[in-house]
Amino acid sequence: MGLRAIFLGRRLANREAEERKIGAFEAIPAMGLDGLGSSAYGPEAALTVLMVLGAASLSALSWVMVPILLLLAILFASYWQTIRAYPTNGGAYTVAKENLGTNASLLAAAALMIDYVLNVAVGISAGVGALVSAAPGLHPYILPLCLAILGFVTLMNLRGTLDAGRLFAIPTYLFVACFGIIIVLGLYRAAVAGGHPAPVVPPPALPSAVEPVGLWLLLRAFASGCTAMTGVEAVSNGMSAFREPRVRHGHRTLTGIVVILGLLLAGITYLAHAYGIGAMDQTQASYRSVLSQLASAVAGNGLLYYVAIGSLLCVLALSANTSFVDFPRLCRMVAGDGFLPKPFAIAGHRLVFSIGILYLALAAGLLLTLFGGITEHLIPLFAVGAFLTFTLSQSGMVLHWRRLLAEEADPGKRRKIRTHLWTNAVGAATTGIALVVIVLAKFTQGAWITVLVVPAAILLLKSIRNYYDRVEDRLWDPTPLNLAGVSSPIVLVAIDEWNHLADRAISLALSLSPHVIGVHLAQLAGPDEDYNRTLREGWERNVVVPARKAGFAAPELAILQAQYRAIHEPVLKLARELELKYPDRSVAVLIPELVKQRWYQRLLHTHRARRLRRKLLKHGGSRLTIINVPWHLEEVRLPEIVPEAG
Amino acid sequence: MGLRAIFLGRRLANREAEERKIGAFEAIPAMGLDGLGSSAYGPEAALTVLMVLGAASLSALSWVMVPILLLLAILFASYWQTIRAYPTNGGAYTVAKENLGTNASLLAAAALMIDYVLNVAVGISAGVGALVSAAPGLHPYILPLCLAILGFVTLMNLRGTLDAGRLFAIPTYLFVACFGIIIVLGLYRAAVAGGHPAPVVPPPALPSAVEPVGLWLLLRAFASGCTAMTGVEAVSNGMSAFREPRVRHGHRTLTGIVVILGLLLAGITYLAHAYGIGAMDQTQASYRSVLSQLASAVAGNGLLYYVAIGSLLCVLALSANTSFVDFPRLCRMVAGDGFLPKPFAIAGHRLVFSIGILYLALAAGLLLTLFGGITEHLIPLFAVGAFLTFTLSQSGMVLHWRRLLAEEADPGKRRKIRTHLWTNAVGAATTGIALVVIVLAKFTQGAWITVLVVPAAILLLKSIRNYYDRVEDRLWDPTPLNLAGVSSPIVLVAIDEWNHLADRAISLALSLSPHVIGVHLAQLAGPDEDYNRTLREGWERNVVVPARKAGFAAPELAILQAQYRAIHEPVLKLARELELKYPDRSVAVLIPELVKQRWYQRLLHTHRARRLRRKLLKHGGSRLTIINVPWHLEEVRLPEIVPEAG
Repeated sequence: MGLRAIFLGRRLANREAEERKIGAFEAIPAMGLDGLGSSAYGPEAALTVLMVLGAASLSALSWVMVPILLLLAILFASYWQTIRAYPTNGGAYTVAKENLGTNASLLAAAALMIDYVLNVAVGISAGVGALVSAAPGLHPYILPLCLAILGFVTLMNLRGTLDAGRLFAIPTYLFVACFGIIIVLGLYRAAVAGGHPAPVVPPPALPSAVEPVGLWLLLRAFASGCTAMTGVEAVSNGMSAFREPRVRHGHRTLTGIVVILGLLLAGITYLAHAYGIGAMDQTQASYRSVLSQLASAVAGNGLLYYVAIGSLLCVLALSANTSFVDFPRLCRMVAGDGFLPKPFAIAGHRLVFSIGILYLALAAGLLLTLFGGITEHLIPLFAVGAFLTFTLSQSGMVLHWRRLLAEEADPGKRRKIRTHLWTNAVGAATTGIALVVIVLAKFTQGAWITVLVVPAAILLLKSIRNYYDRVEDRLWDPTPLNLAGVSSPIVLVAIDEWNHLADRAISLALSLSPHVIGVHLAQLAGPDEDYNRTLREGWERNVVVPARKAGFAAPELAILQAQYRAIHEPVLKLARELELKYPDRSVAVLIPELVKQRWYQRLLHTHRARRLRRKLLKHGGSRLTIINVPWHLEEVRLPEIVPEAG
Repeated sequence: MGLRAIFLGRRLANREAEERKIGAFEAIPAMGLDGLGSSAYGPEAALTVLMVLGAASLSALSWVMVPILLLLAILFASYWQTIRAYPTNGGAYTVAKENLGTNASLLAAAALMIDYVLNVAVGISAGVGALVSAAPGLHPYILPLCLAILGFVTLMNLRGTLDAGRLFAIPTYLFVACFGIIIVLGLYRAAVAGGHPAPVVPPPALPSAVEPVGLWLLLRAFASGCTAMTGVEAVSNGMSAFREPRVRHGHRTLTGIVVILGLLLAGITYLAHAYGIGAMDQTQASYRSVLSQLASAVAGNGLLYYVAIGSLLCVLALSANTSFVDFPRLCRMVAGDGFLPKPFAIAGHRLVFSIGILYLALAAGLLLTLFGGITEHLIPLFAVGAFLTFTLSQSGMVLHWRRLLAEEADPGKRRKIRTHLWTNAVGAATTGIALVVIVLAKFTQGAWITVLVVPAAILLLKSIRNYYDRVEDRLWDPTPLNLAGVSSPIVLVAIDEWNHLADRAISLALSLSPHVIGVHLAQLAGPDEDYNRTLREGWERNVVVPARKAGFAAPELAILQAQYRAIHEPVLKLARELELKYPDRSVAVLIPELVKQRWYQRLLHTHRARRLRRKLLKHGGSRLTIINVPWHLEEVRLPEIVPEAG
């Protein structure tokens, strides 16, 4: 408890839940880090595909980025509507469940979950990759650095979304401010120079063209550039994190993220063109990212450059945070529907769904370790998941509006709904087309893995639900309590020798049932153990006589041979014999237990009580009851009785 | 269970104990490997000290070995007597306990236990060291080889002393046969050549003398050579391993070991002198052991040489087995007296004291790992322990005979006892003097560690006993059962929703006590969980009405708030309130539990029942009883009722 409080802060009560929710200020870093970080690799990814065009890549970039910005605007409009329509738990999962049915919702859930895990791995390794290319001395420590950042983000999120959002606000807003200044400065210089500003630090010359412009090349560049949009769905998936008024906070956050992202993308696209900045080969030692070239071209290699690049590294490394906000909340919803294990739905020490956070960290940590901290080849996989959920959520919304339309009579409202419907329809169609392009363009680069993993994940989710259905079915009890024929059980009391433990155990047994049998296991320690011959006499004197005197039926004493030193077998056999002999009565085994209060007691005692309980529970069948009678060597501090508010 | 049976063989019943005991044939390898292996390093250790004498070391060797052989004869005679006097558990521990008191017995126990651990580490690393010097390619694998041999010997001993003795008979008797042939052949050639045989492969020339013969040098050589005697005590320490007639098997084994050891030592000493074989510097690459030089001088480097050296390696590496036979049996005796944790006294799967075997393996494994598999500097420590126990056991026997002498009137018998007494007295005096020589000669080489560790071990043993005394004291109950004022407890039933689990739990509770309270924990999964408002109506319909109808008191329903999601706190508080309200009644908490029968169920369920039980046992105090009602999803195979013999 002490350690947990030090790392996670004090334990939070359920009634504090509302105070722990976030507003737009914390939500833009907490949920937006993924989206904002995308501005760094979206244009770069498109330019990398276009590299074969040489200098022509710069004008081709506009052909790619303008559709992406349009798509971003469509996504903004449709998620704006989704947030209002599903203000508690927006997400693709809920929209699909309500409008497209269980299968579509599971498809969305599987795609999202995989996406979130990949986002953590890819985000952290991209941040560390950028850091290492800035400080090559750190190269041998890529994996430890990745795991350390993962651990840090995990810990911050176990403390709660509010804590994470507040802390990560610093690098996020610093990043926005720095690149805002760089873009405004760049635009001003470009305007002054009539569209052809002189770079402070000239970027390297562009390579010569090796291919002409073609539709397939542009489509592939578009597919790569679309990674700039991942993260836009985060707000609608994590609505339950917001405080009231929830919709307003959600809308503000969405607006903040999309507007900043859109301006960054547009600015970067224009300035790359104006300054003649193209992508460089990442496998070369001289490699510099597009944003790094841009920053030094506009602002030189001064203080602003270093602060900007530093904050960019932080944003990339922390973009994993978006997954840590949304993944546990998604899992909680899915677990609530029985498709994930129930522990995912339990709020932890700090009111966040800790199990989900830990599973996410574990899965991402495994991926990072497997790939040695270099996960860029996972990027294709992760655009597929994002666009799949975009399309599902938009299509769901189309059906949602159609249903409302069918119920609505007022023509003014009908017109409004029709506008909503068409917004989402256009969104669904464009993201759907983008999805097809991405899958086709990246199928051989790894997108095929998603096509295999998603169905496997759906199968897993379904089999979990299946299990819970079976359990519920077995447990379902349509009839009220039936007390006919209820009689007190036969109580077997495990006895070693006559002491306080035995005394208390037999008193308790007699208070529960008139039919008590003391059970002593002989030869338990092996054949050499001295068999206690005086036990029977002691039993007569200490138990039988006083019991008779007090008017109770005298408890018998059964001495069982434990030939195989297996503590539960003779007891189980006796219980079974008694059950057959008295078919209308149940059997209870009473186990006195010395409670281990100190660590060294675990080494000093034989754990017989615990072992006997475990074995009897496992092998005793559902008719057997186990009664534990604890005995403490040291006084236990019992709770004080003070009235609790709430 | 399956895995255990594969590695350890089938589980053995207590009644099979007698069949698992050993005779002299198995005991000579099982207990004698340590003693026989000593023949390889005793003379070598003495010669190493004498190296400074150059060629004169060979004649000086006799001055050292003759007293050692005499001491061996004295030890033989006195252990012969000890075995007859203490035929169940000979050992220095018992002899000291019966005759010298608790402190002396703990001194013996501590010295023996440390000695056994050291013997395992030193024996295995000596064997691997010899192997590596024969095959230098194995040098990087010293530690893995040591640990593999340790694991193998541990496994064989977990299967039982009989199995280990039978398997290890092969290398043991092979070793005896090979060196028997070599010595006989050498003696024959020496006799034929008039005491100066020509070596087949000449040993390297002896170095020139750098020191004259002196008493202190001879004493140091004697102290080093005494390591040849360790292992002689093993038979008397492990008497409980023998089958009946125990004393006869013990005597045969002791005779076998001592006679073989004596002949080997005498033969080696004589032949080293005849063939001019001295010790070589172990730090040199050209190093060859005395036995290796001897074998090739007598028999050449043919098949016999390789078989002899191979069997010697096995004997050295397996000399650890002696400890594995005796250490667990010693620990069992000490644990029986309460000076070691009770689990040491429990016979395991194969009727050996598995916990002792595992602790020994763990301790030796730690030593080997700490020292990287090279433990020759531990050898001085381990002669101290051996001679300390020799002396203690002999002195104890002297007092034993004195007591018998005081009780005996018959002059014939008195004379016999007096002979016994003097045999042991001479033994005690000589081993005592040897002990002083060893401690003085080896104090700076590490013997001082023993002087620190032994008292620490005694302190530990005493504090364990102290703990058990305190427990016994707290548990001791001088009065018989007192049933005045015994009344049925108030039973709290943990309820989630109405199902078979709840049904069975409440029926059972009502069969135990008329005062039943259903307890539902609200907000357990966190603040978002839908609170079950229909629970109260269901309770009325499913529980209260049928209970009243059947003539029972209607159980109440308490809905507790778990603000901190800590399952036990509200229950503990309610129990505490009830205990204060009804001071003459106890409280029992009944916990229905879905038993996890498959591994995946551990991931799918919340473990609430188990957690609640654990927390209540730990924090509930000794007045609280916990009742587990298991529920199995799948049918449990209950034991068949067949009569058991035994």
